[in-house]
This record gives sequence, structure tokens and C-alpha cells, in this order.
Amino acid sequence: MKLLAVGTVAFDAIETPFGKTDKILGGAATYIGLAASVMKTDVSLVSVIGGDFPQHYLDMMTSKGINIDGVEMIKDGKTFFWSGKYHNDLNSRDTLATELNVLENFDPKIPESAKDAEVLLLGNLHPAVQLAVLDRMEKRPQLVILDTMNFWMDLTWDLLLEVIAKTDVITINDEEARQLSGEYSLVKAAQKIHDMGPEFVIIKKGEHGALLFNDGKIFAIPALPLEEVFDPTGAGDTFAGGFAAYLTKNQEFTFEEMKSALIVGS
Amino acid sequence: MKLLAVGTVAFDAIETPFGKTDKILGGAATYIGLAASVMKTDVSLVSVIGGDFPQHYLDMMTSKGINIDGVEMIKDGKTFFWSGKYHNDLNSRDTLATELNVLENFDPKIPESAKDAEVLLLGNLHPAVQLAVLDRMEKRPQLVILDTMNFWMDLTWDLLLEVIAKTDVITINDEEARQLSGEYSLVKAAQKIHDMGPEFVIIKKGEHGALLFNDGKIFAIPALPLEEVFDPTGAGDTFAGGFAAYLTKNQEFTFEEMKSALIVGS
Repeated sequence: MKLLAVGTVAFDAIETPFGKTDKILGGAATYIGLAASVMKTDVSLVSVIGGDFPQHYLDMMTSKGINIDGVEMIKDGKTFFWSGKYHNDLNSRDTLATELNVLENFDPKIPESAKDAEVLLLGNLHPAVQLAVLDRMEKRPQLVILDTMNFWMDLTWDLLLEVIAKTDVITINDEEARQLSGEYSLVKAAQKIHDMGPEFVIIKKGEHGALLFNDGKIFAIPALPLEEVFDPTGAGDTFAGGFAAYLTKNQEFTFEEMKSALIVGS
Repeated sequence: MKLLAVGTVAFDAIETPFGKTDKILGGAATYIGLAASVMKTDVSLVSVIGGDFPQHYLDMMTSKGINIDGVEMIKDGKTFFWSGKYHNDLNSRDTLATELNVLENFDPKIPESAKDAEVLLLGNLHPAVQLAVLDRMEKRPQLVILDTMNFWMDLTWDLLLEVIAKTDVITINDEEARQLSGEYSLVKAAQKIHDMGPEFVIIKKGEHGALLFNDGKIFAIPALPLEEVFDPTGAGDTFAGGFAAYLTKNQEFTFEEMKSALIVGS
């Protein structure tokens, strides 16, 4: 099976209690692609970058077996830029800057070779772009996975609900699940989100692990306890990438397989 | 094997976002005893109560097979009283009142029948009382488990370290582990606490589960996700009680058995 992932390829500038970087490689699709490549999955990315994006990053992705035919370069545009600062517990962060740049008019193009991908991962991006990708597939993929963020709840609520209604699996963090559902209890939140469309609801809890909900069943996993945490940026994307890659390789989308995928993603 | 537990038998007045109670039955030893009784463990309590303590609570404990010969009643004294208010997330609370009453001069008496208990659980209490109980056992129990709280770190640091040095297993929550060790990372915190004495370090994370550390090995479990959480008072004591009861019944104190005990306690 093939995995197609859409998301940002970006520059990030990050500040944590342990250090600070200028522009480094970031973006949801980047992390998803790299996670899937670790698992030797047939993975293609759909994204957009500016003329300022270094060729060596693209070469690195290609060398890892990631198909980047769907990563369009707008020569006279600038790559999406995000800057954030993490709080002391690394579980929360403030966005310092978001420069959409080439993302502003992003019209996603799916390479012919990936139009029949059986698994589609809609990484964090404008819901209108996620919908466009879904529409442009040859046929509806067997499994549609959605990763989203509070940013889109604040900005494009109705469109986001439209995407959610069309997905099989949603991955979302605990605070976002509460915001999306209006429920504090994560069990109740998952039920409400389930009613919005997705058969499977995954709630990510950062260092505390993740919960998988499906039709009244719950599966909970802890995260690996780390001695040093340096920078959690992209952890959720990497999780989604590993999760999707496992399912793509194993070609079964049951609750049992999702449990294993959750552990692999984690 | 026999389990002996020392701790408070108390009145609690509790306020949560969902309700408020006047004085109800509480106390570490109460919760430990009840948890152990669910597992049909030979469990004895050592504690102290005032003349105001209702007989029907004692009858309830006896009817569940809990040996309360070691629960001394000071007829003209008042039972220990704690009052607290939980914040919205139920993960943190403020203490509104602490009336030590009969606890102030508590001189623990261990019933003859329990002096040879193989497992000793030192529930949350003044470290001096915990030390006295340990001293008054016929011989050192095969397994000494300690549960403590930030309260004693603030008040009786040196005595607390003395108890910790004499225990095999410590159970402590995440914030307390950080306070005790001066380390933010729980993996590093566990290593430092391990160096203080206990071979096994259990860090409780409330709704996020618990971590067990032993000699470089880590075992992590999630908590059961609950739809409704009404009042978390005594959750840590109940956990410790179930944990200790499992080990008492299974009579083995290996890392493998501790893993099962952690799940049972949870």
C-alpha cells in the first residue's frame, strides 16, 4: 500500500528552556515523511515551499526514499515560517510568529504516482487544502487520517468540521479535544468527536501518552519516559507519521491493528 | 503473608467543582485498608481516632475483614480532620484546614497479631510515627513500602529522609518527586530518589498513570480513563493499598511482580 501525506514543509525558529535556534527545517509533512521513511513505507508528500528552501533538505528527503514530486516550489515565494517559545514544562508553548508566505495561495497538486494511495494522512494545514487533496484523489482512500490544531478551530471552524466529517481517524491533543467538543472529560470529548464523523479518535497527551477510542472501546498507552527533553516540536506529526506508516505496511485498519500502530507511533 | 499499614483514620471535608461535603470518612489507613480488603488480604491497621469517631465506621471496617485492633481510640480527643478544595482539573488542590487533634501525640501501638507482618506499608503520616512503627516490629519486614507527601518535605525534611533510607519501595506523586529530588525530569528524579535508599521508586501521575523505576528499568502504565471524576481524595492511598495487597498475596517482591502490582493498584 501507499501513503500520501499533505502538510507543511517549513522553517521553524524555536526557543525552549534549554536552547534557541534560528530557522531550522520543520513542518508537519517533513516530520511525517521522515517518520514514515524510518519504517520503509512508500510515502509521498504534497506541500509547497519557496525559492529560499535549501536544495540539501530536499536531497536529504529523497535519499531517505520519500517521494517529493508533490512538493511544489514557488521560486519567487518564501517558505512558510513558524516561530514558537516553549514554557518550562515543554507541554505548552506560545506562537511568536506565523508567516504563511507560499502557503497563503497553496493549491495542492497530487503526483500521478500517488493519486491511488490507499492511506491519506491530512497533516496540519488549512482545512480547505485538506479538503482539496481529498477531492483530488483518484477515489476515496481506504483510510483517511486527520491531524489538526486549535489554530484551525479558532479560524475556520465550519471548514474544519467538514474535513472531520470525512475522516476515519482523527488525532488531536487533549486541550484541542476539549476545545473541539466542549467537554472536559476526555472520554466524553472522544464520544462527541466520534459523533462528528471519525470512527477512531486518538487523543494525544504529550509526555503522558495517548488514548485511542473506537465504538465504546478505549486503549491507553503511556509515552516512553525520557531523561532529557530538548525540543518537542513535531512530536505529534512524527507520531501521526509512524501511526499511518504502520497501518500502510500492515494493510489492515481494525481496532487491534490501530492499537499496534499507536505503540509504533509513540 | 500479612500486611500491616499505618496511616490516618480521619474526617475529610471536601469541595470539588461537582459538589461539597461536610465531614465524611477519610484517612490514608482507611483507604489502604479498604483497598486491601477488596483483595481479601490479611490486613491490619495502626492508627488513632478520637471519641467522636462513629462506631458504625469501625463496624464497617471489621465487617470487611480489616483488623483494627491497632486503631486506638482516645475517648476525650478529636479525630484528625482535613479539609481541601480541588481545582477545576482535579489534579491539584488547596488545603483549607488541617486539625491534627489526636494525631499530635500519636504513639503507635502494633497489635501482637501483626508484629510479624511480612509487608509494612507506611502510609502518609508524620515520619517520626512511621519510624516508630518500623522500630516496633518484631523484626524488619521483608518489604517496607512508604507513601508520603509534600507536607512532610516542607515540615520534617531530615526525619523524612531517614524513613526513606529505610524503605524498599516509595510511592510519591510527580510534583513531590520533583520537590524531593530537585530534578524536573521524572527519570532523573527517580534516580536521585533511588540513591536515597528505595530500590523501587513509583511516581504517581494521577489521571496519567504511574511509573515504576528499578535499577535502570522503567515500567509505565496509563490510568483507566474515567468518564466522570467526582472526587480524587484517597486515590493515592487506594493505589498504595492495592499495590501492597497484591504483593502480600503473591509473596514475591521482584520487578516483574511489582509491574503486576502497579496494574492492580491502578
